[in-house]
Amino acid sequence: MAAVGGSPTRALRFLFGYGLRARSAVAATLSGPRGLVYEQHGEPAQVLHLKDVALAKLGDFGVHMKIIAAPINPSDINMIQGSYAILANLPAVGGNEGVGQVMDTGNSVTTLKPGDWVIPADAGLGTWRTEAVFDEKILLKIPPDIPLTCAATLGVNPCTAYRMLCDFETLDPGESIIQNAANSGVGQAVIQIAAAKGIKTINVVRDRPNLQDLIDRLKSLGADHVITEEMLRKPEMKDLFKEIPKPSLALNGVGGKSATELMRHLRQSGTMVTYGGMSKQPVTVPVSALIFKDVKLCGFWMTQWKRANAQSKDKLETMIADLCTLIRKGQLVAPACQEVPLVDYQAALKISQEPYVSVKQILRM
Amino acid sequence: MAAVGGSPTRALRFLFGYGLRARSAVAATLSGPRGLVYEQHGEPAQVLHLKDVALAKLGDFGVHMKIIAAPINPSDINMIQGSYAILANLPAVGGNEGVGQVMDTGNSVTTLKPGDWVIPADAGLGTWRTEAVFDEKILLKIPPDIPLTCAATLGVNPCTAYRMLCDFETLDPGESIIQNAANSGVGQAVIQIAAAKGIKTINVVRDRPNLQDLIDRLKSLGADHVITEEMLRKPEMKDLFKEIPKPSLALNGVGGKSATELMRHLRQSGTMVTYGGMSKQPVTVPVSALIFKDVKLCGFWMTQWKRANAQSKDKLETMIADLCTLIRKGQLVAPACQEVPLVDYQAALKISQEPYVSVKQILRM
Repeated sequence: MAAVGGSPTRALRFLFGYGLRARSAVAATLSGPRGLVYEQHGEPAQVLHLKDVALAKLGDFGVHMKIIAAPINPSDINMIQGSYAILANLPAVGGNEGVGQVMDTGNSVTTLKPGDWVIPADAGLGTWRTEAVFDEKILLKIPPDIPLTCAATLGVNPCTAYRMLCDFETLDPGESIIQNAANSGVGQAVIQIAAAKGIKTINVVRDRPNLQDLIDRLKSLGADHVITEEMLRKPEMKDLFKEIPKPSLALNGVGGKSATELMRHLRQSGTMVTYGGMSKQPVTVPVSALIFKDVKLCGFWMTQWKRANAQSKDKLETMIADLCTLIRKGQLVAPACQEVPLVDYQAALKISQEPYVSVKQILRM
Repeated sequence: MAAVGGSPTRALRFLFGYGLRARSAVAATLSGPRGLVYEQHGEPAQVLHLKDVALAKLGDFGVHMKIIAAPINPSDINMIQGSYAILANLPAVGGNEGVGQVMDTGNSVTTLKPGDWVIPADAGLGTWRTEAVFDEKILLKIPPDIPLTCAATLGVNPCTAYRMLCDFETLDPGESIIQNAANSGVGQAVIQIAAAKGIKTINVVRDRPNLQDLIDRLKSLGADHVITEEMLRKPEMKDLFKEIPKPSLALNGVGGKSATELMRHLRQSGTMVTYGGMSKQPVTVPVSALIFKDVKLCGFWMTQWKRANAQSKDKLETMIADLCTLIRKGQLVAPACQEVPLVDYQAALKISQEPYVSVKQILRM
């Protein structure tokens, strides 16, 4: 295992060649398509097995790709457990995110060619496998000059952060947002994308023994203020708002009391977008906040956004291009990641399900 | 006291003449401007006193009006208690809604003339008085051919219902909405306006001894389905949705569990608008409803809408014209009202604060 940070210096092009060169290199290292398959819902450690997986036929619109790296996200776990909003037909291959390289394409494929790097444009593809044939229209080309961990984790968390900062409130430079779960994958992306836009961030985290380390780390990413859930409830919060304007946007990945507190600091007519519920508690809203403060509540789910925008990839491509620009400039780095060979998936699953995990497990094929 | 229903046959024009005729008739019946004044916040029965109230100077833009009738609304009570979102400068005259007739106008007034009937275009004017001078821009002319009780109660509840049905979801004929507090002033207006538009309504009420009477009455107004809070939680609700499509709009005047249940029956990406919190409980939203069902929550407050639209009265005038058309067609009647002479305000206040009140108290000046 090799611990790999999000440094932009380590780029995919140094790992793999282009075009047919890549194809022959890949062919030399594979014994045949394998993947982490589950035949029933349950605890991933029990139901997932590394097996041979048959390749679909290439057909006219198929793209044969080698998958290079795929993260283990909480939603992947929930999907295998059978508790997620979308479930795969069984038997299924686990994993929803990842990065791969095109090896071959069907005759009618026009947007991709061998050597291109691609990420899924939809959830549910099953990325925890060594190679696969997917339809051209559910793949998205990405530039080859971004770090592997950024590429493997680009399609969900940074995209979620990007959309939440763009689609709900008009945020001019100097304005502010508030978020909880600020140390999550989405939270770290929010800090960085907001900082690049000149938007101030108030970042709420849970108290912990190494709090100052976390504060320092998030500030190094561009966080303006990092506070604990307890501080969020104190009257001293009003001092903070002498320095920066009250936020018009709150991003909620926690639910429960944390969400209610975020809302309390929103300015008149602000919006709270919920994208996660780590506390497993619902969101509770005082009626007066809705009526008199005109607070709006909504949710965001990247999977739904991608499906709603599946007909035209324009918005998706623009977003990916913008995010890759930030990555190249060093303004957006991946969260701390640990690469784990596919065969060691049991260890990676275990770590990924521990509480307070702050190192994302990335399966390397 | 006379019990007066919302029948469109009783029109203001039969009670009062027009123009200067009205003015002299008014002058003959008044001993001088009087009103229900409170000098401190507290229980209305204790702090309100019927007193002489000085008239403001007419000035160039002033409108001297006789107030004919003014309802007692829950928000009037809360404002006097000091627990409402907007409070008047003390001492103040109670009341926010009502209908009056113009007696005289300042030299620069262009939109109103003596004899015109007017309602407030903003909250906080203090309508529980016999006459007043208000600025032209905070008054709105209404047609003289609608029933007195409709005119006196036009500016808040029917307007709230109208806006909530227009401004949040596009509702085509045949589509449905769901609402709790269906027997409230807003609820009854929602039923009637929706019925006139061909929109199906699912109306939730609290169980009570005379439930069937209430169901019959709401159905006579145009309600498609009337159910109790208990029925709302039962699996049999799915049978109802064999008859009509799931609602894209929920209107919440209650909060608490009732609101959560309303939300549960919304279709994907629907909106719940909260305009009241009768249960005094907050609104609780499952995180999954926000993220995966894409439910949106917001609030509506007529006072805020009027202030946001104060620069141009176009939208307000269009709404009033639309509502008056419905009233003239018999498609929108006022809720059951009881007229009470101003001097008997203590009795009216008492009745208006009793639980399960279904007869609105209207002060007659």
